[in-house]
Amino acid sequence: MCLASAELLLVSRAMPQETQSPPAPANAPDPVLAAYRKSIDNIDAALIHILAERFRITQAVGEYKAKATLPPADPDREARQIARLRKLSEEADLDPEFSEKFLRFIIDEVIRHHEKARGG
Amino acid sequence: MCLASAELLLVSRAMPQETQSPPAPANAPDPVLAAYRKSIDNIDAALIHILAERFRITQAVGEYKAKATLPPADPDREARQIARLRKLSEEADLDPEFSEKFLRFIIDEVIRHHEKARGG
Repeated sequence: MCLASAELLLVSRAMPQETQSPPAPANAPDPVLAAYRKSIDNIDAALIHILAERFRITQAVGEYKAKATLPPADPDREARQIARLRKLSEEADLDPEFSEKFLRFIIDEVIRHHEKARGG
Repeated sequence: MCLASAELLLVSRAMPQETQSPPAPANAPDPVLAAYRKSIDNIDAALIHILAERFRITQAVGEYKAKATLPPADPDREARQIARLRKLSEEADLDPEFSEKFLRFIIDEVIRHHEKARGG
């Protein structure tokens, strides 16, 4: 992030003043936007890999639950997870409503996997 | 993950055989499930923090787009992001359909933020 910020600063300084620049062609890449997007792409690759690891674990949980005939969903556990993530979100300046929606989105997918494992 | 697996193995070895164990009380914590959940909780904390960082960047993008009167949504960029993340997902053994749904979920939230920034 520090490097990306430094890069943005350099890009920003290297840019001509808005009043002096000729109108850019409609599809010209915007260097400020391009630098932001590079950081977003790096973060998304990290998210995909960490989600892949999360689903590796929940797949094992699903197989264990199916074998031990435990129910796929666990509302008490989910409520505890949501409360914890909302607190973490507040500390990280992330909208707690979004983090709750996000966890629901992930859990819904996990439950679908568990139900599939149970049915298989 | 290596430590977690080793921990699971130890927990698993320390558990009494299923045939010899007395019936567990309805709400007794299952040690195998508890070890899996510890890993999931660690991963979720990482996800929340990396998402917080992603929204910090997209907030800056939103402000920049609003200032530069760029449209909040960019369908071409989104199509490239989806294609890239689907490919990364395949390499990481994550369902590409899920990763596409995931990115849509995040992008929808980002667009909401951008529209709010534009309106404000």
